[in-house]
Amino acid sequence: MWNVLVLHGPNLQLLGEREPETYGSADFNSLCQQIEHAAQSLGMQAENRQSNSEGALIDHLHAVRLSFDGVIFNPGAYTHYSYALRDAVAAIAIPVIEVHLSNVHAREEFRHRSVIAPVCAGQICGFGFNSYLLGLHALKMILEETSRESV
Amino acid sequence: MWNVLVLHGPNLQLLGEREPETYGSADFNSLCQQIEHAAQSLGMQAENRQSNSEGALIDHLHAVRLSFDGVIFNPGAYTHYSYALRDAVAAIAIPVIEVHLSNVHAREEFRHRSVIAPVCAGQICGFGFNSYLLGLHALKMILEETSRESV
Amino acid sequence: MWNVLVLHGPNLQLLGEREPETYGSADFNSLCQQIEHAAQSLGMQAENRQSNSEGALIDHLHAVRLSFDGVIFNPGAYTHYSYALRDAVAAIAIPVIEVHLSNVHAREEFRHRSVIAPVCAGQICGFGFNSYLLGLHALKMILEETSRESV
Amino acid sequence: MWNVLVLHGPNLQLLGEREPETYGSADFNSLCQQIEHAAQSLGMQAENRQSNSEGALIDHLHAVRLSFDGVIFNPGAYTHYSYALRDAVAAIAIPVIEVHLSNVHAREEFRHRSVIAPVCAGQICGFGFNSYLLGLHALKMILEETSRESV
Amino acid sequence: MWNVLVLHGPNLQLLGEREPETYGSADFNSLCQQIEHAAQSLGMQAENRQSNSEGALIDHLHAVRLSFDGVIFNPGAYTHYSYALRDAVAAIAIPVIEVHLSNVHAREEFRHRSVIAPVCAGQICGFGFNSYLLGLHALKMILEETSRESV
Amino acid sequence: MWNVLVLHGPNLQLLGEREPETYGSADFNSLCQQIEHAAQSLGMQAENRQSNSEGALIDHLHAVRLSFDGVIFNPGAYTHYSYALRDAVAAIAIPVIEVHLSNVHAREEFRHRSVIAPVCAGQICGFGFNSYLLGLHALKMILEETSRESV
Amino acid sequence: MWNVLVLHGPNLQLLGEREPETYGSADFNSLCQQIEHAAQSLGMQAENRQSNSEGALIDHLHAVRLSFDGVIFNPGAYTHYSYALRDAVAAIAIPVIEVHLSNVHAREEFRHRSVIAPVCAGQICGFGFNSYLLGLHALKMILEETSRESV
Amino acid sequence: MWNVLVLHGPNLQLLGEREPETYGSADFNSLCQQIEHAAQSLGMQAENRQSNSEGALIDHLHAVRLSFDGVIFNPGAYTHYSYALRDAVAAIAIPVIEVHLSNVHAREEFRHRSVIAPVCAGQICGFGFNSYLLGLHALKMILEETSRESV
Amino acid sequence: MWNVLVLHGPNLQLLGEREPETYGSADFNSLCQQIEHAAQSLGMQAENRQSNSEGALIDHLHAVRLSFDGVIFNPGAYTHYSYALRDAVAAIAIPVIEVHLSNVHAREEFRHRSVIAPVCAGQICGFGFNSYLLGLHALKMILEETSRESV
Amino acid sequence: MWNVLVLHGPNLQLLGEREPETYGSADFNSLCQQIEHAAQSLGMQAENRQSNSEGALIDHLHAVRLSFDGVIFNPGAYTHYSYALRDAVAAIAIPVIEVHLSNVHAREEFRHRSVIAPVCAGQICGFGFNSYLLGLHALKMILEETSRESV
Amino acid sequence: MWNVLVLHGPNLQLLGEREPETYGSADFNSLCQQIEHAAQSLGMQAENRQSNSEGALIDHLHAVRLSFDGVIFNPGAYTHYSYALRDAVAAIAIPVIEVHLSNVHAREEFRHRSVIAPVCAGQICGFGFNSYLLGLHALKMILEETSRESV
Amino acid sequence: MWNVLVLHGPNLQLLGEREPETYGSADFNSLCQQIEHAAQSLGMQAENRQSNSEGALIDHLHAVRLSFDGVIFNPGAYTHYSYALRDAVAAIAIPVIEVHLSNVHAREEFRHRSVIAPVCAGQICGFGFNSYLLGLHALKMILEETSRESV
Repeated sequence: MWNVLVLHGPNLQLLGEREPETYGSADFNSLCQQIEHAAQSLGMQAENRQSNSEGALIDHLHAVRLSFDGVIFNPGAYTHYSYALRDAVAAIAIPVIEVHLSNVHAREEFRHRSVIAPVCAGQICGFGFNSYLLGLHALKMILEETSRESV
Repeated sequence: MWNVLVLHGPNLQLLGEREPETYGSADFNSLCQQIEHAAQSLGMQAENRQSNSEGALIDHLHAVRLSFDGVIFNPGAYTHYSYALRDAVAAIAIPVIEVHLSNVHAREEFRHRSVIAPVCAGQICGFGFNSYLLGLHALKMILEETSRESV
Repeated sequence: MWNVLVLHGPNLQLLGEREPETYGSADFNSLCQQIEHAAQSLGMQAENRQSNSEGALIDHLHAVRLSFDGVIFNPGAYTHYSYALRDAVAAIAIPVIEVHLSNVHAREEFRHRSVIAPVCAGQICGFGFNSYLLGLHALKMILEETSRESV
Repeated sequence: MWNVLVLHGPNLQLLGEREPETYGSADFNSLCQQIEHAAQSLGMQAENRQSNSEGALIDHLHAVRLSFDGVIFNPGAYTHYSYALRDAVAAIAIPVIEVHLSNVHAREEFRHRSVIAPVCAGQICGFGFNSYLLGLHALKMILEETSRESV
Repeated sequence: MWNVLVLHGPNLQLLGEREPETYGSADFNSLCQQIEHAAQSLGMQAENRQSNSEGALIDHLHAVRLSFDGVIFNPGAYTHYSYALRDAVAAIAIPVIEVHLSNVHAREEFRHRSVIAPVCAGQICGFGFNSYLLGLHALKMILEETSRESV
Repeated sequence: MWNVLVLHGPNLQLLGEREPETYGSADFNSLCQQIEHAAQSLGMQAENRQSNSEGALIDHLHAVRLSFDGVIFNPGAYTHYSYALRDAVAAIAIPVIEVHLSNVHAREEFRHRSVIAPVCAGQICGFGFNSYLLGLHALKMILEETSRESV
Repeated sequence: MWNVLVLHGPNLQLLGEREPETYGSADFNSLCQQIEHAAQSLGMQAENRQSNSEGALIDHLHAVRLSFDGVIFNPGAYTHYSYALRDAVAAIAIPVIEVHLSNVHAREEFRHRSVIAPVCAGQICGFGFNSYLLGLHALKMILEETSRESV
Repeated sequence: MWNVLVLHGPNLQLLGEREPETYGSADFNSLCQQIEHAAQSLGMQAENRQSNSEGALIDHLHAVRLSFDGVIFNPGAYTHYSYALRDAVAAIAIPVIEVHLSNVHAREEFRHRSVIAPVCAGQICGFGFNSYLLGLHALKMILEETSRESV
Repeated sequence: MWNVLVLHGPNLQLLGEREPETYGSADFNSLCQQIEHAAQSLGMQAENRQSNSEGALIDHLHAVRLSFDGVIFNPGAYTHYSYALRDAVAAIAIPVIEVHLSNVHAREEFRHRSVIAPVCAGQICGFGFNSYLLGLHALKMILEETSRESV
Repeated sequence: MWNVLVLHGPNLQLLGEREPETYGSADFNSLCQQIEHAAQSLGMQAENRQSNSEGALIDHLHAVRLSFDGVIFNPGAYTHYSYALRDAVAAIAIPVIEVHLSNVHAREEFRHRSVIAPVCAGQICGFGFNSYLLGLHALKMILEETSRESV
Repeated sequence: MWNVLVLHGPNLQLLGEREPETYGSADFNSLCQQIEHAAQSLGMQAENRQSNSEGALIDHLHAVRLSFDGVIFNPGAYTHYSYALRDAVAAIAIPVIEVHLSNVHAREEFRHRSVIAPVCAGQICGFGFNSYLLGLHALKMILEETSRESV
Repeated sequence: MWNVLVLHGPNLQLLGEREPETYGSADFNSLCQQIEHAAQSLGMQAENRQSNSEGALIDHLHAVRLSFDGVIFNPGAYTHYSYALRDAVAAIAIPVIEVHLSNVHAREEFRHRSVIAPVCAGQICGFGFNSYLLGLHALKMILEETSRESV
């Protein structure tokens, strides 16, 4: 059974309350529960962590680098400028998948650029809560392929 | 049962032969078959179309706009400059999901920008053949939600 | 009696169905008919051609270069990047007028730039179907002036 | 009978004398007369105003906003930087059409950008004196459509 | 009692009528009266001047430079490109405060930049008519501080 | 009586000691006291919070979003790049006013741009400590108007 | 005897009083007198005109285009953005020489660019009042050469 | 004997008729014949193909990738933006040489950039028809070297 | 004996494990020890601090500003965008030297720019662990010079 | 018999030793000999000159301008910024052909731009030593054409 | 009697022969003689030096820094990129005046920027040989003013 | 004993006399002596070379490439644009360290970019003469490490 960190960046704990026309009206707890259930049905164990702090997000990535199998990461607005988070992702060996609730390409110009995606395995955006569930699917596929190769 | 067009842009029929370090060594037929099987297992019917021609890709999008339920679209290098394809996607009412085999954000600067993604439902990239399979999952989720809402 | 090619670029045959808040709700056939009637009332004969393909549009421009007297050209989204169409317009001797249904200057940044207009006789945009009719007027004025000069 | 202001920006009163290879050799009075005759033949009444002053042009736009039906406006070189004129056009409710004698897209880079066009109804350029006459046609079409709608 | 020039740039006399969703529905006279009353209640005397002309605005700044104690200045759209007004503000010794009715940072890209603010004492924007009243407060604070220092 | 959070970003607790030619020589405690007194004289209650941490500033904004009536926010240098703070401001419903001690437009190029101001109610800069006091005035005006409207 | 217009743009009549560390401490009248004397000693007759208004400066250029032999022009800050003045200079046949008191290349970035110089005969900057006197010398040399050629 | 595809992009079949001051007055057939003769005299067999369509050009490159030994490619204006053609060149193993009739560096700014050259063996431009003949020479040298190495 | 803070930014505690081809294979503890020994042999006392948090790094800089004599600072990826750290360095009076393990100029474009270096005493990069030791040497030279001058 | 200067710019005399993966392992003398032999077999006489100095390269171009028939020029890295060399090439009447050993378009961004090519007859790059030999062929074709025309 | 170095940059010794439509048909010797005569008639002694080498031009500037009174400098194309020459001018105490034969602002974009002018006393361009003579006048005015001040 | 070339670029021989507020008041000879003494105390032999000529600096780098062990290089203003010097450094196998007297990041924008540093071992700037001494230390560390590895 694979351990997965689902890491939520700044402002995400306000889900449901914050700009509902962009982010939907279901709240953060509901998202966490959906993620945990979906992970279980895929034979994985997901642990949700949220922080508004760039440094704490780096700490989380470091902390799981030896004991977890992969990360689903929504860096929130740090996506667009946090080279420190980029370096943290590049510094750990387990696969990291960047996800976004909204279609970042359909919003303000500054949201089109991700400085973190270049060091991730891949990126999924625009599907609301489903972006996370697709991320779990994608991570499972990567882990299965890796374990198959390493046999 | 939903009908899905899986539309492949330029150079994709050379898969397996073309730059295998970037795109993998399995060939295009194998990709099409995997897509069709995965669609069936999700209760959808997928039809694969490929063209190197921007105009033909627009024609395909127009052709299915009334008879299909959604599109998985890998626009290849047209992703980065074809405003005509962008307008074609915007002109049709069914959901279109942009997918890429490689992580475009980890490659040349010009591949970081998609002029088509802003009018798509979402974007998935970096998971090889799995990008398409995740796209099917994502499309199914969108269609289910839409049909639920329209009841 | 002057022969005029009215050349329509990508996605224009979806008129009426496509983004009606931008392009209006009358359809492409109705546009073609209005153009033909207007041409006749100006003593000209208009022939409508539409293609989604950049190459086919170039072919059309080449084909009429010796047998027609002028072109009304709506290059659609190719306006913004098709240097190949620009070269085709520059390569033929008859006058070409660029027209747009919408006011391209009032839309997305990328629509403000035309790479084709610099080699056209002039540009008309923002008047819906009337952009074409004004284009016919303009072309007639140019042709009358030219024939007057060449007497 | 509609009242139309035809507003001419800086340097236009030197027409015929100024850079004749770009602007032609007929003079400003002749332009004004052609405009007035053309307007009459279209069942409109055109009043010509010219000023080299940005402020005076704004004053003219304000002055006619309640008593005239529309404006044909050649902002001259103010086209490229006068956000104050842009705001003046946006501030008044009657339709304004931007016209240029020369094909601005075929000239220096700085002439390709109009900061005023985004708030106009449309733009016509490249047809010499005829740009104005086409502008009158276009304005009539807009006014007819509006009056038809408001019935 | 301090004399204050409240200088209004282009299009501001159309207040109430012009784009009310941006600028509110109260008119220019009402603004001037509010300013004058507010000034009096702060022990200052405010004189309102408006012009659409860049040159006339410069003239006003020059004219009061020796006889007034400060200026509240809304340069309208000149804010974004008038280096001549910038030089006029820099050329006079009395404090000038730039104010805007709307939050310029929340509007078009070109409105984010002020070429005049670098030579003003400070800038206040986004508070509607209150921007002016806050400007009066700010100016009073500056003048009191200056007179305290010069004692 | 309205509750107001006055939120101070990085390096502001060094006031008086830090670059006194730019920021003045009075210290941070003195600023906080002036703010509290001014708030009281306006019938408001102000609470000062300072943090050097982007994440903690986001936490503060979230924390007060239901229990306070508005925020006066000096984001310090985060002003120029913290899209995460921008999202935090956009995520909460109470009005936020951006203030700066110095005239940011008169300093280095990078200080001219605020990524947070577009989602604030307004911005005030250049008046030293008075920027905060004017911010309190402005906030009171907004709150009074809102409560008047909601009656 | 040649007639020369010496045209002074915005803010120049504040010379001596305005930023003396940049522009020197002698006043505008003194400059005009020096110019007139220097012109006489070169066998020319100089007439000084100053205006803060872009439109009035254009009017002056137009007014002298048939009756004067050349222009010494200090466009002040209009140098950097007035395409309308550029067109006015290009529209008249007599030689125009751009002069500046200060070395514009040694000041703010925006002062390094002249949009007017490309259509002038030449440019002289950085020599204080002497820039004008050198301009008179230069103009005389041009006029002598032209009259020599036209003999 | 080596088989060589000589691939001509958009507008090249109008040679002789199109902008003769740039492209010379000999026609496309004459170019094809010169190429075929020159190839024969170098012991190679050249086949000419022309298309105005980006997609068809990609098809041609794919079609010859196993049966031909190399390609001389003049992508016409597609040179400057067709990342799809770039990918097609990169996708095939045989050497491709980019040629241009005119010196693209001496023309409009947009012609200075080739998005295809980075994946070609080399580039030759500016020698009219001779650019193709030099391309044949260059290709022969590459093929000889390769066959020498593979012995 | 001088007290020196050696401040390590984000991701540096993963040294040895993280991208060893760029950062070498010795670990963070070993770096700290080398620094402490080297400091002692230079007659200085070095204290190592590391944090992934921008805010905590600012706190550290503030904390030592009165009790330490200088700082060796490796801001990690914050180097490239943290204007808040820049302000913290500028806010304290003791000398700060920026160091980097790798040659940042030989890596990705975004690493070529330091927003912190302009307010440091100097910068040393590219020498691995030795960058720190050279930083200690440099700091000692500065402190000696300062104490010599202040005698 | 035509005299040809083959002019080699900076660092080219280190050929064979310098970055052999880019420039090959044969040395500079060997290149010069190959050039001389190839020239002779084409009925031309080639003289090789090399200098690391921009000024000396200009001197060489000037020196041969009357006594030689053409130049093959590899400006090395001066290609990308030496406007002085550009002016030297433009100043002389004999044809100059720019050549490069490597495919400059496939290397660092800064090598994609040539400031000298716009004033050359043409450019050849990417063929190693053969670039020079192709340059000799190209030059011969130009000279033959010129002499044919001048008969 | 003042000693003046007149320093000519690259390609200037080809005057008369080089691009005569831009630089005129009189030759370099004739320019030098005119300069020397003009200097004498102004009571100065001018010495002409020319070099194509950036380094040699720096050497010349250094050499005269103690024994000459000023420099008239035409840096040719080095004007646009030689920061080394800029530093040389800044390094010497005597006044340097930049002159150009042609109006650099009316030519290619790259010629509009001078990196040397910001550290010169002033700049004169566009007057052919007369640019130098005006430079001598200007230098004399500066030297007279300086000697007057230092009395 | 290692041989070290200390190579000084343009204008450095004017040290002490040139802009002393930036570069200090000690002269070039004194710098050379300090370098030689410091080298000796580190068990190295340093040879100083200075040239204002880009070509001569390249010659120096080439000359020592086989007989010296490393280079300390201050390229002066060539740092910012000399791709030819960059290629020279890349062409030689011995380590090169870039040093600057001043903190280039704290000066004009154009001095922030080094085109040479990407091919150096590392860069040291901002420590005055000490930059060179630190460079010697750094070079010794590199050489010791290399000789240790090669044992």
